[in-house]
Amino acid sequence: MHFNRQDIANLESRRRASFVNSLSGFKSANLVGTADKDGNTNLAIMSSAVHLGSSPALLALVIRPGGEERHTLSNILATGQYSLNHVNTGIIESAHQSAARYERKVSEFAATKLTPHWLEGYQAPMVKEAHVKMMLELREHQTLNINATHLVIGEIVQVELPDGALADDGSVDMNVTETVALSGLDSYYQPQQIKKMAYAKPDRAPKNLLSE
Amino acid sequence: MHFNRQDIANLESRRRASFVNSLSGFKSANLVGTADKDGNTNLAIMSSAVHLGSSPALLALVIRPGGEERHTLSNILATGQYSLNHVNTGIIESAHQSAARYERKVSEFAATKLTPHWLEGYQAPMVKEAHVKMMLELREHQTLNINATHLVIGEIVQVELPDGALADDGSVDMNVTETVALSGLDSYYQPQQIKKMAYAKPDRAPKNLLSE
Repeated sequence: MHFNRQDIANLESRRRASFVNSLSGFKSANLVGTADKDGNTNLAIMSSAVHLGSSPALLALVIRPGGEERHTLSNILATGQYSLNHVNTGIIESAHQSAARYERKVSEFAATKLTPHWLEGYQAPMVKEAHVKMMLELREHQTLNINATHLVIGEIVQVELPDGALADDGSVDMNVTETVALSGLDSYYQPQQIKKMAYAKPDRAPKNLLSE
Repeated sequence: MHFNRQDIANLESRRRASFVNSLSGFKSANLVGTADKDGNTNLAIMSSAVHLGSSPALLALVIRPGGEERHTLSNILATGQYSLNHVNTGIIESAHQSAARYERKVSEFAATKLTPHWLEGYQAPMVKEAHVKMMLELREHQTLNINATHLVIGEIVQVELPDGALADDGSVDMNVTETVALSGLDSYYQPQQIKKMAYAKPDRAPKNLLSE
């Protein structure tokens, strides 16, 4: 099956969004928690978090112009802070519902029955029910010329994890945290680990470290 | 378990990379195929593809300064073209091995026993063994001020999929394509779909469309 540029452009818009959103492969599913200057909270599911570097620990978010995420962006720009919280198998329905286009005065926390979790000294709420919670501080914001999407770069300044969630190598064990993956716009997956590969070197054959 | 900014900075560098690389959640696993002006091929696994928009169909890649990905970047800048190919369950070892720091004259295709698949009129090879193959044309390149990583934005101009890989809504069915997800630097997962959620609206309860 083959699609060229014109075939993609010719797709009906909702179908095209479903198609193109699935082409990058599996995506992360995170709830982004923010508040405005008066403490009114907002929560939005996002699948665009991308690792930029680990020293300092930087993540980028791609935020569309307009759309359901506009309140999140204005809160981030107002307070300079936002939380990122992994969606887990137990909160998929609430997380997905946060994408509905609620009015500004409605908090998605209340609408989706998720609980704000505040850290002293920060103006953005984490999600109590998430097993992996992070606080970020805004470091850079730009609007991309090509299609007016926003690139929001933040530094991870606080991380909360369940006991037992760190693997031997220092990574987060997502089997323990029950983190889910997203494909397209609406399909939620529970990943099963099948391989853990040794560090790749030119003079060594690839090696799976998991006993199979 | 709690980590603040200083705790993260204090981690040994390899541990810190494993930790921070897993904080964004699950990542896509794609092989990026390129060639230089003389047709010498290169292949690199990347987990940083992120959806920017579907009309036109745009994807961004984050590429670290230096590192194993430097040949990929110079090829993209030289030819303006690159392929993106989903890693599937059958090619994990080869895909992971492409991250080894081979010398410039060594093609990772030969070193990892993957096969270049050429489309007429394009200077970048796809990966024959991949079930989802895309060709992209470079649209924008910038170096991020904050940590000198490269942001490479391309438009998807060709897509090849196996028959039967399109779901009813137009998305790619990753159960069919056997696409894998990555966590951290080296852990490969086979995701199992657990929910497909109806479009979220403020006045409607969240609804799972999969019969359970």
